Amino acid sequence: MSDAPFLRHMALFWLKRPDSAEDRVRLIAGLETLRAIPQVRTLHIGVPATTEARDVVDHSWSVSESMTFDSFEDQAAYQPHPLHQAFIAACGDLWERVLVYDIVDAG
Amino acid sequence: MSDAPFLRHMALFWLKRPDSAEDRVRLIAGLETLRAIPQVRTLHIGVPATTEARDVVDHSWSVSESMTFDSFEDQAAYQPHPLHQAFIAACGDLWERVLVYDIVDAG
Repeated sequence: MSDAPFLRHMALFWLKRPDSAEDRVRLIAGLETLRAIPQVRTLHIGVPATTEARDVVDHSWSVSESMTFDSFEDQAAYQPHPLHQAFIAACGDLWERVLVYDIVDAG
Repeated sequence: MSDAPFLRHMALFWLKRPDSAEDRVRLIAGLETLRAIPQVRTLHIGVPATTEARDVVDHSWSVSESMTFDSFEDQAAYQPHPLHQAFIAACGDLWERVLVYDIVDAG
């Protein structure tokens, strides 16, 4: 296996209350708990950058997660993992929309 | 500066001819030329993973690029860089839609 992660799993969350700093902090804290899932190789939690407004740039989301996995099997094991399910149970009321991109190397 | 990249710049491309392997190869080759831009710290080029079809997962795009920059200034310098403009001139006819997410660390 090369050093490059096999699978990148990116999720974008749109909060029901996008102006609530409290809700954003709750969601970020919830996402942090996902680091403890053994199959999650890396996790980056982000927020929109204050880059220039251009037609092609979507700044409308609230919080992002970008995870890497070593295999499809690891990603499949992550979905039903108790910590992932606990996160959804604890934080699922916060967002009105989630959008996922699953990415593998083009090479 | 920490080891974590300051700014992640993710672009998703939807090809006009999504079933054309030739067009996908052309776009990927064009994206590869962006590595030579000094401000581009890292570049990952991806394609959709064959993960489970779920309502929240968007598998409809063709090619992704994920870049990191050390500063907003570097990202701003990238936009008009001759190699970036040459890429757009050479490959801009290939895609019907591009969508960008600019991401900074939530911490």
